[in-house]
Amino acid sequence: MRILILGGDGYLGWPTAMRFSQGGHEVHVADNYFRRRAHDEAGTDTLTPIGPDLPTRAAAWREVTGREIGVTEGDLVEWDVVERLFRDFRPDAVVHYGEQPSAPYSMKSREHAVWTQTNNVVNTLNVLFAIRDLAPDCHLVKLGTMGEYGTPNIDIEEGFIEITHKGRSDTLPFPKLPGSLYHLSKVHDSHNIHFACRIWGIRATDLNQGVVYGIETEETALDPRLATRFDYDDVFGTALNRFCVQAVIGHPLTVYGRGGQTRGYLNIVDTLRCVELAVETPAEQGEMRVFNQFTEQFSVVELAEIVQKAGIEHGLDVEVTPIDNPRVEAEEHYYHATHRKLLDLGLEPHLLSETLVESMFATIEQHRERIVLDHILPRDRWRS
Amino acid sequence: MRILILGGDGYLGWPTAMRFSQGGHEVHVADNYFRRRAHDEAGTDTLTPIGPDLPTRAAAWREVTGREIGVTEGDLVEWDVVERLFRDFRPDAVVHYGEQPSAPYSMKSREHAVWTQTNNVVNTLNVLFAIRDLAPDCHLVKLGTMGEYGTPNIDIEEGFIEITHKGRSDTLPFPKLPGSLYHLSKVHDSHNIHFACRIWGIRATDLNQGVVYGIETEETALDPRLATRFDYDDVFGTALNRFCVQAVIGHPLTVYGRGGQTRGYLNIVDTLRCVELAVETPAEQGEMRVFNQFTEQFSVVELAEIVQKAGIEHGLDVEVTPIDNPRVEAEEHYYHATHRKLLDLGLEPHLLSETLVESMFATIEQHRERIVLDHILPRDRWRS
Repeated sequence: MRILILGGDGYLGWPTAMRFSQGGHEVHVADNYFRRRAHDEAGTDTLTPIGPDLPTRAAAWREVTGREIGVTEGDLVEWDVVERLFRDFRPDAVVHYGEQPSAPYSMKSREHAVWTQTNNVVNTLNVLFAIRDLAPDCHLVKLGTMGEYGTPNIDIEEGFIEITHKGRSDTLPFPKLPGSLYHLSKVHDSHNIHFACRIWGIRATDLNQGVVYGIETEETALDPRLATRFDYDDVFGTALNRFCVQAVIGHPLTVYGRGGQTRGYLNIVDTLRCVELAVETPAEQGEMRVFNQFTEQFSVVELAEIVQKAGIEHGLDVEVTPIDNPRVEAEEHYYHATHRKLLDLGLEPHLLSETLVESMFATIEQHRERIVLDHILPRDRWRS
Repeated sequence: MRILILGGDGYLGWPTAMRFSQGGHEVHVADNYFRRRAHDEAGTDTLTPIGPDLPTRAAAWREVTGREIGVTEGDLVEWDVVERLFRDFRPDAVVHYGEQPSAPYSMKSREHAVWTQTNNVVNTLNVLFAIRDLAPDCHLVKLGTMGEYGTPNIDIEEGFIEITHKGRSDTLPFPKLPGSLYHLSKVHDSHNIHFACRIWGIRATDLNQGVVYGIETEETALDPRLATRFDYDDVFGTALNRFCVQAVIGHPLTVYGRGGQTRGYLNIVDTLRCVELAVETPAEQGEMRVFNQFTEQFSVVELAEIVQKAGIEHGLDVEVTPIDNPRVEAEEHYYHATHRKLLDLGLEPHLLSETLVESMFATIEQHRERIVLDHILPRDRWRS
């Protein structure tokens, strides 16, 4: 298959590209290096060293495996970039990771909020119009987020819910309570994609993904030049990555507020498998499928405890300290989200274990001198 | 009260401004004349002559009533325009009509779609940040649309619905099935506003308005220079306006498809009253209220029949002809939408009658020479 990976320079984009290339597919990646620029501006960086750009990464991939990955350096907000990608590459599937992915980034200021929503909504609209006009059979596999749902007081279903009301029923989009202006951009995308499926007959799979952890895949392990990024900073890092870095440097694990915030999590290896499963069994023409893409639920306190336990095993002295929550979110809440569809397609989960956390410690220790200490704690408060 | 009307040059914006001014409030209007420019580009125009710009309209208002309406000519997508409005005028309430209001316009092309969503989403984000940072007590009264809900197979509630699911319940945003890229922009706005209320404590009322008809209000009737616009063209016109024009010029009333498309409708006089009621009884800090703002439901065929009947009374020879539907929408469907909250606040509906339609005939006959014949039928098809 001809598979286009948008955001192919990213934490998940690059490993996804290598996986499909290794599987014998024809792969093309596109990226505008937004995250690299945002890191440069903030004075932060990925902990794991990665190639300086996509051509260099693709050259290393060719050297190691003999396989080709095509590269476009460009911005998906510009229609001629998207048009050229679809005209020249004629994808059978497009895996769309190409968005501003950080909630704290979107909450920094009005400018960051407007930029995040404009960037994400417009580039997805461009992709939808490109599919409609240039590749109507192409299957859109779009990376959404479990954060679109927020934390309702009922079980979260996969995209749609059957509602019985005043004696009638209908299956309707699951109501959304997103928790940041970034998460809102994904909600906007989901509505736009659903419309495009209904009106234009586009086929799409919206992967409402949980928080991904881990950096090792079969392909990243082949050569250090094929590594993917590891973000632990206040803007692009995840709580688990931050905790692992804090454990290694002897800093208390900083839990935001009471720490009852519960979310879905999955291993990067499972992300790649989920995307593969989605691409291999495409949605029908006109269908918008939604998969809740995670394998386990944890609260922030539970994550901290796992890291603490693994740290002690590893000979580290690890404390857990709550700090004032910079976000505005429920710190204790009901959370139960369905995630059957990917299991039904054959996903075999790799669960979070202390062994995996210890392997993350090892990577962090290896690159310890690259840690930027003053960008681990939150800098922006979401309340006005 | 100090009331800021965004989109104050529009069909509803200008009459709303006059109403509040007449009521003794301090009123400021802002508009970027988007609709005038779009009409110029298309070669269409309002049937009723209106003043050439807001300063001229405000001068006529001053001459007729001795009252002042402040004017800003500017684009709400530009932050400094919005910032200056809020800093200088310090509104107690902002009535936000300032968006691209046409579904067919948004469906013309990728450029029109992207522009519509960017314009509408960004200017509402700007307003939310302005309230947060410059006028935290200001009540946002935002014009949404009944079209956000689409045509689900259950009763439509006012913004939120209590869902019982797997033994638990929660009151959640009503699921949205918007029918155009314009309607989607309003769905995006609603989600952004809800977030701003939840996270920043903003107070907002989202008026999910039906289709408005009529051009006469107490204030427009004072002087011909105070008239509001009447659009009947393929892009900005409504079905009822189109039917009235067709009846007058002896053209068959063109019903799109089977004509079972049912929507909520209300008289412009009731729109003004609803906005007044919302402003007079503001939402609580942190509350996002949603009112379904319409008084009656009609199918397109029913509207055509009302116009036909009124036409015959009026001595016109009126036929009804179905044409191929340029839109993609259910042409026969269940439709029952709750609209209690404004009635509970005291709204006394003015219902659609043949007398009102006949008064519209009279206005159309008066300006008959201004009718642009070749822009009545649809030019753009929504299916790809």
